[in-house]
Amino acid sequence: MSAIITLTTDFGTQDAYVGALKGVLLGLCPSARIVDISHEIAPQDIMECAFVLREAAGYFPPGAIHLAVVDPGVGTDRKPVALRAGERFFTGPDNGIFPLVLDGAAPDACVQLDQRAYWRNDTPSQTFHGRDIFAPAAAHLASGVPIERLGSAIDQLAPMKWALPIMDDEGVQGWVVHIDRFGNCITNIAREMIEERRAGRPVKCFAGNAIIEGVQPAYAAAETGEPLLQYNSSCLLEVAVNAGSAAELLGIRKGNPVNILFS
Amino acid sequence: MSAIITLTTDFGTQDAYVGALKGVLLGLCPSARIVDISHEIAPQDIMECAFVLREAAGYFPPGAIHLAVVDPGVGTDRKPVALRAGERFFTGPDNGIFPLVLDGAAPDACVQLDQRAYWRNDTPSQTFHGRDIFAPAAAHLASGVPIERLGSAIDQLAPMKWALPIMDDEGVQGWVVHIDRFGNCITNIAREMIEERRAGRPVKCFAGNAIIEGVQPAYAAAETGEPLLQYNSSCLLEVAVNAGSAAELLGIRKGNPVNILFS
Amino acid sequence: MSAIITLTTDFGTQDAYVGALKGVLLGLCPSARIVDISHEIAPQDIMECAFVLREAAGYFPPGAIHLAVVDPGVGTDRKPVALRAGERFFTGPDNGIFPLVLDGAAPDACVQLDQRAYWRNDTPSQTFHGRDIFAPAAAHLASGVPIERLGSAIDQLAPMKWALPIMDDEGVQGWVVHIDRFGNCITNIAREMIEERRAGRPVKCFAGNAIIEGVQPAYAAAETGEPLLQYNSSCLLEVAVNAGSAAELLGIRKGNPVNILFS
Repeated sequence: MSAIITLTTDFGTQDAYVGALKGVLLGLCPSARIVDISHEIAPQDIMECAFVLREAAGYFPPGAIHLAVVDPGVGTDRKPVALRAGERFFTGPDNGIFPLVLDGAAPDACVQLDQRAYWRNDTPSQTFHGRDIFAPAAAHLASGVPIERLGSAIDQLAPMKWALPIMDDEGVQGWVVHIDRFGNCITNIAREMIEERRAGRPVKCFAGNAIIEGVQPAYAAAETGEPLLQYNSSCLLEVAVNAGSAAELLGIRKGNPVNILFS
Repeated sequence: MSAIITLTTDFGTQDAYVGALKGVLLGLCPSARIVDISHEIAPQDIMECAFVLREAAGYFPPGAIHLAVVDPGVGTDRKPVALRAGERFFTGPDNGIFPLVLDGAAPDACVQLDQRAYWRNDTPSQTFHGRDIFAPAAAHLASGVPIERLGSAIDQLAPMKWALPIMDDEGVQGWVVHIDRFGNCITNIAREMIEERRAGRPVKCFAGNAIIEGVQPAYAAAETGEPLLQYNSSCLLEVAVNAGSAAELLGIRKGNPVNILFS
Repeated sequence: MSAIITLTTDFGTQDAYVGALKGVLLGLCPSARIVDISHEIAPQDIMECAFVLREAAGYFPPGAIHLAVVDPGVGTDRKPVALRAGERFFTGPDNGIFPLVLDGAAPDACVQLDQRAYWRNDTPSQTFHGRDIFAPAAAHLASGVPIERLGSAIDQLAPMKWALPIMDDEGVQGWVVHIDRFGNCITNIAREMIEERRAGRPVKCFAGNAIIEGVQPAYAAAETGEPLLQYNSSCLLEVAVNAGSAAELLGIRKGNPVNILFS
């Protein structure tokens, strides 16, 4: 079976950048099977890229290679890297994209992509390492080149600046880390942060201009147009509106606080 | 040849939902060939999904499996289904998505996806049956599992609430069912509704703020910026503007009436 | 290895047009590997299509077939064509899309697609030659049909109306030909137009509401929010803002002039 290479970028699709990536991948590894995850990460939003990669990569079969390029520091001294975690591979800039998908664990192998023989050419562009360094790395991995040959081993990844919620016995304070296209507001509050602490007490949530009580099993548990809380398909608390956009109707933006009180 | 699985959803591509679907599909059927039809169906717009599926699915070769997920009722009692029509397969929620692509005919086989052994796991998310039930069904079909094993046979699909135009000897009254990205306004009035009734009489159309006479063979039959009628590539009446957006210039929105008079 | 067919269109992805193209391609050549370059070319923007095709096509391996459909003249007398340049193939309307990717050179073979046996059917739609003529041509090329059999040879392509910058010893006057999703403003001024003329003199650029001095090696060479010039990954001069949108912050639109003075 040919290797799978997934793509997660902030390139959008009105430009030629995605086409260039795909061309380089197929030029170096003609049998690769390219799978678009997203090219609509908000421009230069490292946190969103980390979040989408975490939510999608785990479903792919062993051996998949995940190419992720959200790279505001391209051309500076942030490192280009490739890493292996179990049977999954990742390549992209070392700017905080990857720790979340690894659940904070150290990768099993991690290299700085400093072997020029595996670049697209000797003098990579200062603005498009996706094409010149990361796509070639992904294609070489897909062709069976061992990760260790792509560069020098490094000890640890740059940390992701994604703070955790604050919790005490009275409740949890987190915030909105992603708003999806339906206007659902996904927080960094995991199901167990609530369920392991509430001890039978009711849940009251302050989010945007709404106070919402209880966590529901489905959107349809609220009336049409009414807000509700639920755990999303990744077990993160989500503020939603049945048949509507919570972001719009409740006035919520990414980064806004969400407060949970057990009372 | 590996099986083809097409995707038609309202997920957009800035979230991880599409990536999760593709990962599950390739995890269960690594040889599947995934083809994106659209992830930009308007959120929760069942009619638009039905329309796009009808316009696209018929071109694919026999054996193609069409996964369609626009699912405002996820987590309620709407049924998850898979169906076969000739050599084409479909899977998604039974909420009106499928009757149009079948041209109102009964499917040759239709099952409710109630066999948990073919779900992603025993306890599907209440919000993401695409990942947990429909994608696994598509992947199992692609792997050669007979549709009858995926669940209990059901007799008929939920009807689609897409009314037909009203017609008499004087004309046809229909409405705009889709506005494409060029601003062309596609109606539910089929070519034969006009051509088999007009009996040589002229066609006059009231649409938005315009009165348009005659049906043209090509956009360029009108002056630049001027409105025209034509039959689109699926033989539906379309209100267009040569080199412009009919929706914008004529003030037309989806659902607006379009009246045809033979006079 | 199965043939690669790339797609570059202005169809967007909320409609069924892309799905229809892909269905026709796979119906005629089930083994084809379809690669999306872009479906977000601005509607009917021939220049943008030519630009994106030029920036992406060159990276694909020999034998790739590039299907490009931005076709405001569909249904008029503009010719449907297929062409070969070295080991690369292209098909689409002859309206100026292709000269740029050929760098102005004549193609090695060029035919008008007038052989109806290779169309989807005898009576193509007047509005969707992508589905009825171009996709079948691409699929037949992918299946190994010699290009000469698809139609009558023609001598030359329609010219692209993309004027070149004006240059003298004092400087270069060009304009913005593309604004990418990050707001970077890409001009038609190539690196060598500046570097082979400046003879050690400083570069001063007038673009939008800014005067910018010097060409930088990376975005990060400017302070956050400050404008800069650099050569993009295709060696075209680009007006950018570090960590911001040059188009928005400097008030630049596609087509706006960019003046370079050596002083």
